[in-house]
Amino acid sequence: MRIEVVNTGTELLLGKVVNTHAGYFGQELFKLGLRIQRQTTIPDGDDIRVVLNEAFPRSEVILVTGGLGPTSDDITREVVAEMLGRPLHLDQSILDTITEMFRRRGLKQNRSNDRQAMVPEGAVVLDNPHGTAPGLYLPADAVAGSPHLFLLPGPPRELKPMFESLVFPAIAGMRDAGEAPVEWRNFKIFGVGESSLASALEPDFEKISDLEVGYCARLGEVDIRLIGTLAAVEEGSILVRSGFSRDIVTESEDSIEKVILELLIERRETLATAESCTGGLIASTLTDVPGSSAVFHRGYVTYSNEAKTAILGVPGDVLATHGAVSNEVVEAMALGCLNASSADHAIAVSGIAGPGGGSDAKPVGTVHVAVASRGGELFSKRYYFPVDRISFKMRVTRLALDLLRRRLMGFPLDY
Amino acid sequence: MRIEVVNTGTELLLGKVVNTHAGYFGQELFKLGLRIQRQTTIPDGDDIRVVLNEAFPRSEVILVTGGLGPTSDDITREVVAEMLGRPLHLDQSILDTITEMFRRRGLKQNRSNDRQAMVPEGAVVLDNPHGTAPGLYLPADAVAGSPHLFLLPGPPRELKPMFESLVFPAIAGMRDAGEAPVEWRNFKIFGVGESSLASALEPDFEKISDLEVGYCARLGEVDIRLIGTLAAVEEGSILVRSGFSRDIVTESEDSIEKVILELLIERRETLATAESCTGGLIASTLTDVPGSSAVFHRGYVTYSNEAKTAILGVPGDVLATHGAVSNEVVEAMALGCLNASSADHAIAVSGIAGPGGGSDAKPVGTVHVAVASRGGELFSKRYYFPVDRISFKMRVTRLALDLLRRRLMGFPLDY
Repeated sequence: MRIEVVNTGTELLLGKVVNTHAGYFGQELFKLGLRIQRQTTIPDGDDIRVVLNEAFPRSEVILVTGGLGPTSDDITREVVAEMLGRPLHLDQSILDTITEMFRRRGLKQNRSNDRQAMVPEGAVVLDNPHGTAPGLYLPADAVAGSPHLFLLPGPPRELKPMFESLVFPAIAGMRDAGEAPVEWRNFKIFGVGESSLASALEPDFEKISDLEVGYCARLGEVDIRLIGTLAAVEEGSILVRSGFSRDIVTESEDSIEKVILELLIERRETLATAESCTGGLIASTLTDVPGSSAVFHRGYVTYSNEAKTAILGVPGDVLATHGAVSNEVVEAMALGCLNASSADHAIAVSGIAGPGGGSDAKPVGTVHVAVASRGGELFSKRYYFPVDRISFKMRVTRLALDLLRRRLMGFPLDY
Repeated sequence: MRIEVVNTGTELLLGKVVNTHAGYFGQELFKLGLRIQRQTTIPDGDDIRVVLNEAFPRSEVILVTGGLGPTSDDITREVVAEMLGRPLHLDQSILDTITEMFRRRGLKQNRSNDRQAMVPEGAVVLDNPHGTAPGLYLPADAVAGSPHLFLLPGPPRELKPMFESLVFPAIAGMRDAGEAPVEWRNFKIFGVGESSLASALEPDFEKISDLEVGYCARLGEVDIRLIGTLAAVEEGSILVRSGFSRDIVTESEDSIEKVILELLIERRETLATAESCTGGLIASTLTDVPGSSAVFHRGYVTYSNEAKTAILGVPGDVLATHGAVSNEVVEAMALGCLNASSADHAIAVSGIAGPGGGSDAKPVGTVHVAVASRGGELFSKRYYFPVDRISFKMRVTRLALDLLRRRLMGFPLDY
């Protein structure tokens, strides 16, 4: 099945917003054994007509994002209606939904939003609970010479739920009934590099017929995705498990923070955080998970030395002797955090995110992490991630969470 | 000047690697007043021929990334040589460089790397100090019907230095000496919706000739970008400023957190945070900015009621009477945070991020925000953002930061 993606949005071509849509579609469709053959980005405005004219004859499915908004350069809906010869009509229920959404938010509705309620004849409306403009599905039309067309909103938080609940099932249904179902499994690995994984596993993977393997590395995590027949995926899974049991965060697509929260809930234990260089990102990451309030009650962002002493009781002479970025200080932070919070586990981090603040002894990218648990276990270690500030914060956050995961699972932390 | 970008790489379409090239080129070329008209991603292999054939007649410059490597599906060099009728010859100095690079890294050189030393007749070699494959520049060729072609390596750490030092200057030199420079300005607006902005401004914008206007809305922020002649951009800017002076976060591309930190540094004042529903995201956002430690010393994540009382001194009876999500509680949190931290300003938030925890009186999406300043100013208000949990956290974070911005700039907060 030949699938193309067309992203409209001047902001994408200007580099103001990174285009994550194509990658997202690619990852999702891969689960069906399907691949995107081409992805095109064009500015808002008339180019959508040109690109669709080119793509119609060569595609079976086209996913279009953007151009459904209220402003004058959002014209995807109108262009498609015209190309397919399907007049637009006002869909009162969409208009009512938009009106209700504006009312609930206490905003004044603008007539320019009415365009978002216009639907081409024969289109299936794809509900958008996260925004005003619904998506539209126009099934393939032999007369107009058009393939299956999905018109989807641009913002990822509107697009992704819509794709998952409505578009993915529709495309899955288009696959031939006779085609063998594709199985897949995702392993999230932390603490082993992509190339080490590949060189350890590839020779054995290659002996398994009908197995396709994908890797995706990001900030210390590597996703290994196995795709193929059920037997091939099982055989491949055994290899991953036997080689990297302690490094497997999950065999699902769950995040590491979700895995940790479930472990804590299972053990009826709580966690508190004491952050310096991550500046609250560990706490924020944990609280991204619904229900985190059951196990995470408080966190401290102790950015200054004074705050480390006043809040966590880190002795001034330890700070003076070893510096804020040291095993001694993160251990004192973690123990102080356990003490102040009455939590069962505490994570503490202190490091140099940069770009300033580095020295020869402690260059930008240096970080110390400690994990303390009620009962006495205390671990700390120095790490080095010479990456940009934002990546550093994310990298350290994921490392600290993985150290806690190993503690909770009874694995050694010093891996 | 019509510029296209062609990215080759199966990994981009599978979502294993995010395509940041197009955005990077877009940001860089915008400095020359140039825009990318189209960006296309294709898999490794034969599609490059099809796409270049389509792009040749309509483009003046084509930037191609990827497909210069040593593996069998890296065929950009060979395809282009054939399309332009320019035979490939071995460039001994490139081969020597590759050989030397392998020797230095202690790697065994493979004959497949020799292909990377092949150069089409008439091509300019673009040195690649960060990898093995050099880039190639093929100037426009009227006989072959080809535009200016830049063949560039895929990995960003090889691509970016090459673009900056060799490609950007070449393209800058192609602009007509007589061409009027293009001006642009970006307004970041908070607190007014995209459609309200558009309906207020569009009628007047339309009267300005040679002005192009772009909007980009995200989590309560709207970027308005004005592009055109200097006079047109100035005229448009006056309209934005006169209509929305209090809502303009910045006339640059700076983030709201950067704007706030600069305001605080200017005033020699500090900020502390007391977060419930945002779970540390406000602190993390502030500490994304280098140098934030000068004005942000500490933050509290008081997720449980007990933490709100123990850390911030929120009275138990206020929590019992009004509930954690109330003006009374966020005011007590903000005042307690000022008190505990000795900061000059404190932000406090408490809300229901969902998906659980809502009620009829306080549905999921309800949030209260308070801003307290030393000197006595205290503001609090209820808001409602019925969006998914992650978007809610981001939306509330940006709102809280904007309220502080208005406080620091002397504008009313109750807008």
